[in-house]
Amino acid sequence: MLNLPRTVDFKDGRVVLVDQRVLPEKLAFYECDTVECVAYAIKNMVVRGAPAIGATAAFGLAMRALQISELSYDQFMDEMDKAAEMLRSTRPTAVNLFWAIDRVMEAVRSSQNPEESAELALEEARRIAEEDVSNNMRIGEHGSPLIRDGSTVMTICNAGSLATVWYGTATAPMYKSLEEGKRFQVIALETRPVLQGARITAFELSKAGIPVKVIVDGAAGFVMREFGVDLIITGADRVLADGTVFNKIGTYTLSILAKEHGVPFFVAAPTSTFDLKSKRSDVRIEMRDPSEVKQIRGVKIAPDDVEALNPAFDMTPPENVTGIITEKGIVKPPLKKSISQLFAH
Amino acid sequence: MLNLPRTVDFKDGRVVLVDQRVLPEKLAFYECDTVECVAYAIKNMVVRGAPAIGATAAFGLAMRALQISELSYDQFMDEMDKAAEMLRSTRPTAVNLFWAIDRVMEAVRSSQNPEESAELALEEARRIAEEDVSNNMRIGEHGSPLIRDGSTVMTICNAGSLATVWYGTATAPMYKSLEEGKRFQVIALETRPVLQGARITAFELSKAGIPVKVIVDGAAGFVMREFGVDLIITGADRVLADGTVFNKIGTYTLSILAKEHGVPFFVAAPTSTFDLKSKRSDVRIEMRDPSEVKQIRGVKIAPDDVEALNPAFDMTPPENVTGIITEKGIVKPPLKKSISQLFAH
Repeated sequence: MLNLPRTVDFKDGRVVLVDQRVLPEKLAFYECDTVECVAYAIKNMVVRGAPAIGATAAFGLAMRALQISELSYDQFMDEMDKAAEMLRSTRPTAVNLFWAIDRVMEAVRSSQNPEESAELALEEARRIAEEDVSNNMRIGEHGSPLIRDGSTVMTICNAGSLATVWYGTATAPMYKSLEEGKRFQVIALETRPVLQGARITAFELSKAGIPVKVIVDGAAGFVMREFGVDLIITGADRVLADGTVFNKIGTYTLSILAKEHGVPFFVAAPTSTFDLKSKRSDVRIEMRDPSEVKQIRGVKIAPDDVEALNPAFDMTPPENVTGIITEKGIVKPPLKKSISQLFAH
Repeated sequence: MLNLPRTVDFKDGRVVLVDQRVLPEKLAFYECDTVECVAYAIKNMVVRGAPAIGATAAFGLAMRALQISELSYDQFMDEMDKAAEMLRSTRPTAVNLFWAIDRVMEAVRSSQNPEESAELALEEARRIAEEDVSNNMRIGEHGSPLIRDGSTVMTICNAGSLATVWYGTATAPMYKSLEEGKRFQVIALETRPVLQGARITAFELSKAGIPVKVIVDGAAGFVMREFGVDLIITGADRVLADGTVFNKIGTYTLSILAKEHGVPFFVAAPTSTFDLKSKRSDVRIEMRDPSEVKQIRGVKIAPDDVEALNPAFDMTPPENVTGIITEKGIVKPPLKKSISQLFAH
């Protein structure tokens, strides 16, 4: 059984998060008892990863509902709308955040009694978290056959247990393969600027007992060409109806390298990550603070007077994607048609 | 006139280097009066960049010759061979190092009188340094027409003034364009693991007055696709007879992205960087210490028990190269034929 704690939990009236800023030095927890604290944690990447921030926002809303359940209905709803708005404004690209907030707010609105609303909100948040874990385990079952004994798998960023409530998306086929006794290795791109690959993926895979090697992002092409990579699995922050994948900056580059070297490029994402309504131009690519590029963990690496561009995500077109591993099975090209069929059921 | 000091110089019997380890915090000099010190400086990247390490080794050998010119001829030659061997063993990929050592040792052997040998060695080292500067200025003249008013130029690592004795290779067309009054901007890939792009290229271009933006290496594909890049110019550590380019890790990835986006991919390299004798399999790609990946300027970024691969260079095949800007003109495909013609003159 995977020896990692829950990334997102709700205990004793508090939202409890694995603090991803201090990994890999230590495994510490960050506890919030206000919505402001939860919003801060999402915005400042105490918690990150599309499914994890969805569950965090859900628990944050439920916590707020429980705290104010003695207010009048109008006051209660007013406060809940404010809380939802605050959480929505934290990060713009991952769709799970909006999806989870919408689900909890729908539960809230399904009763006119604040106390009952709060109970329903907590139930819904817990359901979102449980569904996340069970979906990830199903992604593992569907994706595991892609990994063979002796395979080398490459991944970027962290779409691992620590990016979800538990078990991960891109890592789910790896953990399932490990449980099945397969031997394989993982090449983790360090993933500048926030280094989720070096810090978080390397941490959780090695803790789980999977051999992992870290490389700088620029070495991906060389490693594919010289050492050979059998398979790439990444996560996703948002998947559109046509199969366009928004994910961590560097994913698009990796998809081009995969095409050039004939390496299958898979994306692992639960259906909650799909956004069937938006067009590419509707999706805002978050531009984060240039200081994330110009400093690394507090150490200055570029001159003060030089600008930096810091797009946090990029867009991979469907033609670069070999398949999308969901909890309902692997979606294959033509992606637009297959995605439409997936959601028709 | 470009307001940067000489990167490599010989003053008062000492080899004087711009200490590139402390850039961009400060512009400091590192002085050596022993061959051991010079070898340390090359190996530990106090000085880096193919042309700069060639000139450094040349001055190091000349300095040693001057120091031991009172020895008997046999003792003198014995010591000189040892010094050459020590310098040769510092870094295996850049060909200029071996080329410069060979040139100085030939000068040394051209007299049987140690005092005269030492004088000839110093003359030859000074000639190597002067040729480097004048070759770079000619690379600038040949390459400048590639940069138009309003162009966005992308570069990786530092093939700048600080990678040469002065003026740079990849930067030469930029500095020449600046002198000609053109306005253009440069996107500098930060170039993990040693961050020569963020630290050194950003420093020298902004000091020269060229607008420069730093991006993480993984953002190169996104920036080409979304913002547009007109031209890529990189340096080279070694160019083979067929046009295969060995350069900083990440260059191969960049060449694939350039092909995908239809961006011209130019390499700037003096003819001293060409190695017409070796095959691809003869060239050793330096694998540097994994700690360069697992730490950034002393800050730990990956778990201790996780492995890292740290190839310092990669190989870009000739089919990805639009042209090679040399001091004798721009070499265009078919590269094998054009390179052969270039050296036939």
